Amino acid sequence: MAAFRALAASRLAVTAGLAPLLFGGPAPSSRAALHASAPRPGPRVAVVLSGCGVYDGTELHEASSILVHLSRGGAEVQIFAPDVPQMHVIDHIKGQPSEGETRNVLTESARIARGKITDLAKLTAVNHDAAIFPGGFGAAKNLLCCIAPVLAAKVLRGVEVTVGHEQEEGGKWPHAGTAEVIKALGAKHCVMGVTEAHVDQKNKVVTTPAFMCDTALHHIHDGIGAMVRKVLELAGR
Amino acid sequence: MAAFRALAASRLAVTAGLAPLLFGGPAPSSRAALHASAPRPGPRVAVVLSGCGVYDGTELHEASSILVHLSRGGAEVQIFAPDVPQMHVIDHIKGQPSEGETRNVLTESARIARGKITDLAKLTAVNHDAAIFPGGFGAAKNLLCCIAPVLAAKVLRGVEVTVGHEQEEGGKWPHAGTAEVIKALGAKHCVMGVTEAHVDQKNKVVTTPAFMCDTALHHIHDGIGAMVRKVLELAGR
Repeated sequence: MAAFRALAASRLAVTAGLAPLLFGGPAPSSRAALHASAPRPGPRVAVVLSGCGVYDGTELHEASSILVHLSRGGAEVQIFAPDVPQMHVIDHIKGQPSEGETRNVLTESARIARGKITDLAKLTAVNHDAAIFPGGFGAAKNLLCCIAPVLAAKVLRGVEVTVGHEQEEGGKWPHAGTAEVIKALGAKHCVMGVTEAHVDQKNKVVTTPAFMCDTALHHIHDGIGAMVRKVLELAGR
Repeated sequence: MAAFRALAASRLAVTAGLAPLLFGGPAPSSRAALHASAPRPGPRVAVVLSGCGVYDGTELHEASSILVHLSRGGAEVQIFAPDVPQMHVIDHIKGQPSEGETRNVLTESARIARGKITDLAKLTAVNHDAAIFPGGFGAAKNLLCCIAPVLAAKVLRGVEVTVGHEQEEGGKWPHAGTAEVIKALGAKHCVMGVTEAHVDQKNKVVTTPAFMCDTALHHIHDGIGAMVRKVLELAGR
């Protein structure tokens, strides 16, 4: 099981890791008010990838579920990744680095994006209402200075996030100790089930445990669905 | 858009390409009849991958949707891939081969399987009630002698399959010509929508158009859901 999960940030200013990420689109209802009789455009959501594979990149089932739910919610999606070398390449069978092999984060992320991907350096706040960061070790290794909800805990004082439960419960929550890291950073950890998502209304941060829980894939898919729906509500277009 | 889609084969004998695939589990109700009061075990489904990425491996959104729906249906899933070199490595941004790079199909498929994967050479009929082949160019390039529904058309005389519609309809079905290939092989092509799956009851082959249709991802996810539910019905445990 991967140690990281999906974080969604809506109109959130974040500066961390390899690239500054600034989100602050226009007021939610401005366009709708000007064109009341036209169909409402979908929320514009940036999805930020960090490679292709749970142990050195984006957890691809989290990414795929995010994209399915964004599609169902009518979002306008643009996919980004940084044009940098991966920290390393992990052989996903052996669970060990593949010596001498190098891969590029943008090029590998394009496998998830089916080729339709943009350099993260070109992401600008005005073009998006929200951004979603799927989990996977790549979120820590290639993209950001720390894992996604912990990143929010680092940059947003007192932010509320969830990584699931706070006890291992016989292996159901193998990474439960992460909650203590979040608390140590001065953030609030909210205990949630795998099919739930937590909304920090003040900071506009939405989180779901995803693969923090050792459970069936459809529960993870449904939790990501809850997260995406709440992001689209926050985006409010 | 990829040119290939998911094929599900239930208790189907296939010999093609790199590995003989033989499916012939026990009669559907035998175990249930012996243990009427025990919980029914889920159908045992083999998912056969061919790499990780639409242009040189498995279309990973098809694979992920298959695994979500199998999880929801309570199937016992085992993931396989052949331990062979990829035909080539495609740069998914450029859409061109990456010169001088080599990758192994089993190792790359492990990114989708999160490391839990078995060499396809170890797949034996008696252990599975059904097998599902996600699409992606890898299904043609690395795994099988031809694309999945066309493979069925080649090996099963008069089989009924779908690859969607038979006219391009302004780009909605960019690979519509595939239906003619299927007919030329003596098989029957059944026109179906992207959210539907076709069942050939006689040959126990289930097909869905998936990425043959240029449409929103959640429609493809739902079509794969229809396919998986019909496979689990056919597996009938």
